[in-house]
Amino acid sequence: MSNNNLILLNSDEKTRRINKVTTEMIAAGVDMLLIADNANKFYLTGRVFAGWLTINSAGILRAFVRRPIDLEGEEVTFVRKVEDVALDGNVIGLENATLSAAEYLRISAMLNNQSAVDASNIMRKSRAVKTDCEIALISESGQKQDSVYRRIPSLYHDNMTDIDLQIAIECELRKEGCLGQFRISGNSMELFMGNILVGDNADNPTPYDFAMGGAGTNPSLPVGANGSMIRPGNSIMVDANGNFTGYMTDMTRTFALGEISEEAMRAHACSIDICNRLAQIGVPGAKASALYEEAIHMAEEAGLADFFMGHRQKAGFVGHGVGIEINEAPVIAPRSKDILCIGQVIALEPKFVIPGTGAVGIENTYVVEESGMRCLTPTPPEILPL
Amino acid sequence: MSNNNLILLNSDEKTRRINKVTTEMIAAGVDMLLIADNANKFYLTGRVFAGWLTINSAGILRAFVRRPIDLEGEEVTFVRKVEDVALDGNVIGLENATLSAAEYLRISAMLNNQSAVDASNIMRKSRAVKTDCEIALISESGQKQDSVYRRIPSLYHDNMTDIDLQIAIECELRKEGCLGQFRISGNSMELFMGNILVGDNADNPTPYDFAMGGAGTNPSLPVGANGSMIRPGNSIMVDANGNFTGYMTDMTRTFALGEISEEAMRAHACSIDICNRLAQIGVPGAKASALYEEAIHMAEEAGLADFFMGHRQKAGFVGHGVGIEINEAPVIAPRSKDILCIGQVIALEPKFVIPGTGAVGIENTYVVEESGMRCLTPTPPEILPL
Repeated sequence: MSNNNLILLNSDEKTRRINKVTTEMIAAGVDMLLIADNANKFYLTGRVFAGWLTINSAGILRAFVRRPIDLEGEEVTFVRKVEDVALDGNVIGLENATLSAAEYLRISAMLNNQSAVDASNIMRKSRAVKTDCEIALISESGQKQDSVYRRIPSLYHDNMTDIDLQIAIECELRKEGCLGQFRISGNSMELFMGNILVGDNADNPTPYDFAMGGAGTNPSLPVGANGSMIRPGNSIMVDANGNFTGYMTDMTRTFALGEISEEAMRAHACSIDICNRLAQIGVPGAKASALYEEAIHMAEEAGLADFFMGHRQKAGFVGHGVGIEINEAPVIAPRSKDILCIGQVIALEPKFVIPGTGAVGIENTYVVEESGMRCLTPTPPEILPL
Repeated sequence: MSNNNLILLNSDEKTRRINKVTTEMIAAGVDMLLIADNANKFYLTGRVFAGWLTINSAGILRAFVRRPIDLEGEEVTFVRKVEDVALDGNVIGLENATLSAAEYLRISAMLNNQSAVDASNIMRKSRAVKTDCEIALISESGQKQDSVYRRIPSLYHDNMTDIDLQIAIECELRKEGCLGQFRISGNSMELFMGNILVGDNADNPTPYDFAMGGAGTNPSLPVGANGSMIRPGNSIMVDANGNFTGYMTDMTRTFALGEISEEAMRAHACSIDICNRLAQIGVPGAKASALYEEAIHMAEEAGLADFFMGHRQKAGFVGHGVGIEINEAPVIAPRSKDILCIGQVIALEPKFVIPGTGAVGIENTYVVEESGMRCLTPTPPEILPL
C-alpha cells in the first residue's frame, strides 16, 4: 500500500469501521454522511486531509480533497470547495456538533429535494466502540505514558515551580514519542500538554469542562499550573498528554512533597477504591449513570463529598470515553444515557481537591470487556514522594 | 480591579476595543453581536470563559457565563445554556465562521422577528487593527522568541534528528515563558508547537494551509518534522511557537549544517530581499494583493519561481495577520481584498523549498506604521551554521 493512498487502514480494519458507521446510518435513516471533521476523517481513512469525505449507507467512501495534492486512490477527487462535493440520497447527515455554521449554510444551499440531519451522534457512537486495532494503539500509548510517569520523581529537584516540573515532564513525554497534539472535540475546549496542579492552585476554577482546574499563567489560557512553588505538604497532580499513536490514553498520578494531610491520603485511597469498584461493575450493559452514582455514593460514605470532583467548582462527570480525542463517548455523568459495551475505552478520574494540600486521586484508562473494565495505564496508583 | 472581574482590560483599552467593534457593527447594520468564540471573548474582555458574550451597537457588554463560577462584574449573568442569553435588537450578528452548526440552529430557534447575519468579519476586521497595548504584547512575544532563537545553534549536537532539535527548542521556548498553546482559527487547522523542517522533508505536502509542509511522524498529524537525521548539506528551517503573552509573533529562521547549495543561499538572500521590499511598500493604503504580486515578481526575477512558497505543493499566500490567533486578517494573497492600515500586525514569510537542500527563507512579524512595516522579530536574518 502506497503511503500516498487515501486509505491507510488495512482492508479488514477499513471494513470493520465502515460497517459500524453504516449500521448507525441505517438505524438513523441517513443515506449519506458528509464528513468534514479531522478526527472523523482520520477514523475512516487512517489519515487527515483537507477536504470532505462522504460515505453512503452501502459503505462506499469518496474523498473530495483540497490538500495534500499527492493523495492517490480510486476514492479521490480533487476539488476546490464544498460545492464540488457530490451528495447522493435523500437524507444527508452532517456533523452539526463540529461543522461551522458558515459551511452548514453552504451545504444547505446545495441540497436538492434533500434534507440535512444532525449525524454527529452516528460518528460519536461508532467511534465509542473501539476495534482491536484501535485498542492496541491505545494500549501502546498507555505503555509509553506509563514509562514516562515512572520517571517523574527523578525529574524533580529542589525549588521547582509547577511550571518547571511541567516543562520537564513535557520534554520527557516528547522524547518518548508523544505527538504533542492533544485532540479535543469542541471549539471552546483548549489545553496544552496536560494539567499539573500543585497545592491550592487546584482549587482555582477554570472555564473549561475538565475534571480539574488551575488558574494558568495567563488569562488567555486560564487552566493548570500557575507558577506555584512546590512546597512541603503540597500534593502534585500530573494529568499529562498520552497521545503517542493518534489514539491517546488519559492517566493521572499524584505525588507529594514531604508529608501531606491525613485527609488527603484518605481521599487518595478513596479515589483508588472508586476506580477499582467502577472497573468491577463496569460490565457490558451497565449504565454510565449508575457508575457515576456509585462514585458519588462512595465519596459520600467516606465523608469526602465536599471535596469530590473539585471543591469551589465541581465537575459534572467522573469519566469519559477516550480515543482519537480526549472527550469521546460514553460520558460517566448523572444524566448520561450511555450504556457500557464491549470495546468502549473509558477514562475514570474520581479526584478530590483538599484545601491546604491540593488535588489527589488517580485517573486510569480502561477497556470494557466481558468481565469488567481492564486497565491500560499500569503505573502504580499510590502517592509517590517527589 | 479584582482578578475575578469579568473585564481584565483597563477602562481606556476596553473602550478602544468596543469602539472598533461597534463602528463595524453600525457599518454592517448589526444591532447585537452574540460571541461564542474564545479568541473573540478574550479580545473584548481580556479573558476566556465558558458561555456567551453580547455587545450591542451602543457598546454595552453582557456576559452569560457557565464557568468559571467565581466571575464578578455588573456584566455577568450565570446561565446554563444558550437559550438563557438575552438577544435584543432586530439584526443579530453571529460568528458563522467558528460557531458550530448545532449552536447556530439553537440560536436561530431563539429569534423572535429577528434576523441572524454572519458577523465573523466584524470581529475579524476589528481585531486586525491592533491597539498600542496589543502591539506592546506582540512586541514582548517577539523579544522573547528572539531570545530563544539566538540560542538555537547552542542546542544542536551531533547526530540529532529534526524531532530531537524540535524538542530542545520547545523546551527552551517553554522555559522562556511560551504558553505552549498555539491558537489557530478554524477546526481543520492543527499544529503543535511549530514546524521544524530539515532537508527534503520540507517538500512533503501537508493537508494544512500553512506556508510550509513536512510529513510529520504520524498520519494523525501529518505536518512538520518526520524524524529525519540532520545531515551536512541540509537546511534547517525553524518556525516555532511565539505565544508568550496571549498575543503571538510568528518568526522563522533558517540554519545550515555544513555547506548548503549555492541556489539555496541565493534563495535565502531573495527571501530577505522580499521581506525588506514588502516592508518598504507596505504603507497604509497599500493593497495586500500588491504585496503578494511584488513577492512573486521578485521570486520570478531571481529565477526561483519554481521553488517559491513550496515546490511540489505551493501555498497560496506570502503573509497573514497575527495576534491572538496565528491566522488573522489581512491575508497577503493574490485575490485578497484587504488594504493595509496603521496598526495591522502582519507576518511575512516568503520561503523557498530547494530539492536536495530543504527549506530556506525567513519570516518576520511587522506592525504597519505611517512609513511602512516595522519589524517586531529582531533576530538576525542570515543563515547561521548549526
